[in-house]
Amino acid sequence: MIYFDNSATTKPYKEVIDSFVTVSSEYFGNPSSLHSIGGQAEKLLLQAREQVAKLLTVKPSEIYFTSGGTEGNNLAIKGAASLNGNRGRHLITTSVEHPSVRAAMEQLEQKGFEVTYLPVDKQGKVCVADIEKAIRKDTIFISIMHVNNEVGTVQPIEEIGQMLKKHPTILFHVDAVQSVGKIPLSIHENRIDFCSISGHKFHGLKGTGALFIREGARLAPLFSGGSQERKIRSGTENVAGAVAMAKALRMTIEKRAAGIERMKKIQSMLRTGLNRIEGIRVNTPTENAAPHILNFSLCELKSEVFIHALEQQGIFVSTTSACSSKRKSPSKTLIEMGVPEALAESAVRISLSFNNTEEEAMTAIRAIEKAANQLRKVLE
Amino acid sequence: MIYFDNSATTKPYKEVIDSFVTVSSEYFGNPSSLHSIGGQAEKLLLQAREQVAKLLTVKPSEIYFTSGGTEGNNLAIKGAASLNGNRGRHLITTSVEHPSVRAAMEQLEQKGFEVTYLPVDKQGKVCVADIEKAIRKDTIFISIMHVNNEVGTVQPIEEIGQMLKKHPTILFHVDAVQSVGKIPLSIHENRIDFCSISGHKFHGLKGTGALFIREGARLAPLFSGGSQERKIRSGTENVAGAVAMAKALRMTIEKRAAGIERMKKIQSMLRTGLNRIEGIRVNTPTENAAPHILNFSLCELKSEVFIHALEQQGIFVSTTSACSSKRKSPSKTLIEMGVPEALAESAVRISLSFNNTEEEAMTAIRAIEKAANQLRKVLE
Repeated sequence: MIYFDNSATTKPYKEVIDSFVTVSSEYFGNPSSLHSIGGQAEKLLLQAREQVAKLLTVKPSEIYFTSGGTEGNNLAIKGAASLNGNRGRHLITTSVEHPSVRAAMEQLEQKGFEVTYLPVDKQGKVCVADIEKAIRKDTIFISIMHVNNEVGTVQPIEEIGQMLKKHPTILFHVDAVQSVGKIPLSIHENRIDFCSISGHKFHGLKGTGALFIREGARLAPLFSGGSQERKIRSGTENVAGAVAMAKALRMTIEKRAAGIERMKKIQSMLRTGLNRIEGIRVNTPTENAAPHILNFSLCELKSEVFIHALEQQGIFVSTTSACSSKRKSPSKTLIEMGVPEALAESAVRISLSFNNTEEEAMTAIRAIEKAANQLRKVLE
Repeated sequence: MIYFDNSATTKPYKEVIDSFVTVSSEYFGNPSSLHSIGGQAEKLLLQAREQVAKLLTVKPSEIYFTSGGTEGNNLAIKGAASLNGNRGRHLITTSVEHPSVRAAMEQLEQKGFEVTYLPVDKQGKVCVADIEKAIRKDTIFISIMHVNNEVGTVQPIEEIGQMLKKHPTILFHVDAVQSVGKIPLSIHENRIDFCSISGHKFHGLKGTGALFIREGARLAPLFSGGSQERKIRSGTENVAGAVAMAKALRMTIEKRAAGIERMKKIQSMLRTGLNRIEGIRVNTPTENAAPHILNFSLCELKSEVFIHALEQQGIFVSTTSACSSKRKSPSKTLIEMGVPEALAESAVRISLSFNNTEEEAMTAIRAIEKAANQLRKVLE
């Protein structure tokens, strides 16, 4: 089996699951309880928070544990709009964000907010000057993803952050779900106010995540109640999940230097190999692309058909994003990049982890060629 | 060690953790992925949903997985108010709800909704006639907890449900976090529209829960995005957590008949034993009380001091609710029941699981007597 769908979800590291089991069985207390069983759980939660903060180079008090990337994105966007809506009602984002950003923005539009969805260029990249031009007096919030989940384009977060230093009242949110652990991001240097990550994208567990909230940045909670996470995210803390996520992040960042090198090699092999196959067009740009995603289209073949054909050869890839795959609409990102609809409908995403190998890439190229030839014959 | 703080959180069953590990390591796919690794995860999620639905005697399509009780309560209250606010702006609840209900209501008040907080009697019980009297033409939502988390009072959900049959447009939410698996509740017969449960209260894992949403009842999502959970709760599903919760619920309900009998015996032993100790007043009512909670006050001793003294004897209890314990304010429920503030400030909650024994109860009574005598001597 070759698992090439790591942007949908990764296999949790064994050590991560082990930590989860230890905490769940031996330190099961409620961190809010005043006795020592609660205290032990609270201490583990504190350590997990410190570890995540250190790995992201922020303060522990700026880390808020969530149930995942979708929660982080919704909390940042809706929570900040709710609390800052009296200052202005305008938000800016791109037309290629993850559905959890897009849909949160659309919900705000229904509530009387106005949202500018900026276009991207042929590489899937937003133009910093476009953002600057879109800023109005009533702009309160800008949300830009770090790495696009469908094609892997890296957005110019650093430049946007520098430009936004001229606009200190605008809150800046970065969806780093696809980039964390793969592409370093200086959160404070780039004046980011909110940054979302998701545990299961880097070999942590589903149902875990964190939102960075810069000290001083304010938002209204989506969950109110027992005042956990400093009133920003009430609810008994998933201590074992937080510890597991901290461990997954540490392991990922430890493996990063070597891992990224290998990913780049594999990505390059795949690109070269796929470009040689008749009818295939690689959609992931050659510049400003993350090392773990390679998106391509196979002319005239629907992506669903193709991924099932690959699965028969033991290779697991995806259509576009997992979150959108069941809707069977063509990749939004590709359409916005100007890719013709027929090609967007035949898009396939390969997404790597640090565990994938060059041998797997070679096997995959052969399998893709074989599947492409077979399917084309059927259609002839 | 005697763990008597099961209303704060329970120790997960070993079998529950085992299921979590199996799913996380062997079926780690994203249920939204189109390939078979995703399909296996999707199938497990479906089975978990069917199992939870069967155990609660509702339809699988009425179960929505959440990250816990606080999310369920916030989603039901805010989500329903958001979508039904055009029909009316008035909500009804009691003055003794869990903070996650109370705070969600308060957030709605800030947004122009009006909330009636009904009083309770000396037993902590809300009067059905009071609810009926509070209903106005613009009432859209009523939220009543099944079992009070601080004293264990069971609210008359059946009578409220029957009364509400005369008011078909009012949505009825029940916070069943403290009752599920302990006190049966006929959700459909009592015309309940929303019902929240939390996995870690019945030996499942933290970070897991479910919200029952009656077919046809509508609410706006708190998390929008990839359209998971039929657009009501987007975000990659915590499949392993859902499977673990389904198993915990099944095991709990299987143990229920025998478990409740033992709990009742232990509760009765504790009540008799504590009543014999000088200065102790039992706050949990003798009628309409759940079998797993016994709340008592020890005159003139602050609860924090007392629970630490008990901990030194290896007995773990709590002040009031874990969610409120760090605020160190006296129990809201006791104050509302008319308990004098001095007694409310010295409240201690014992909360049982099916694993507690009569021997533990005997040991606890002796320890409580010893601690009470020692602490009183210090104060003399």
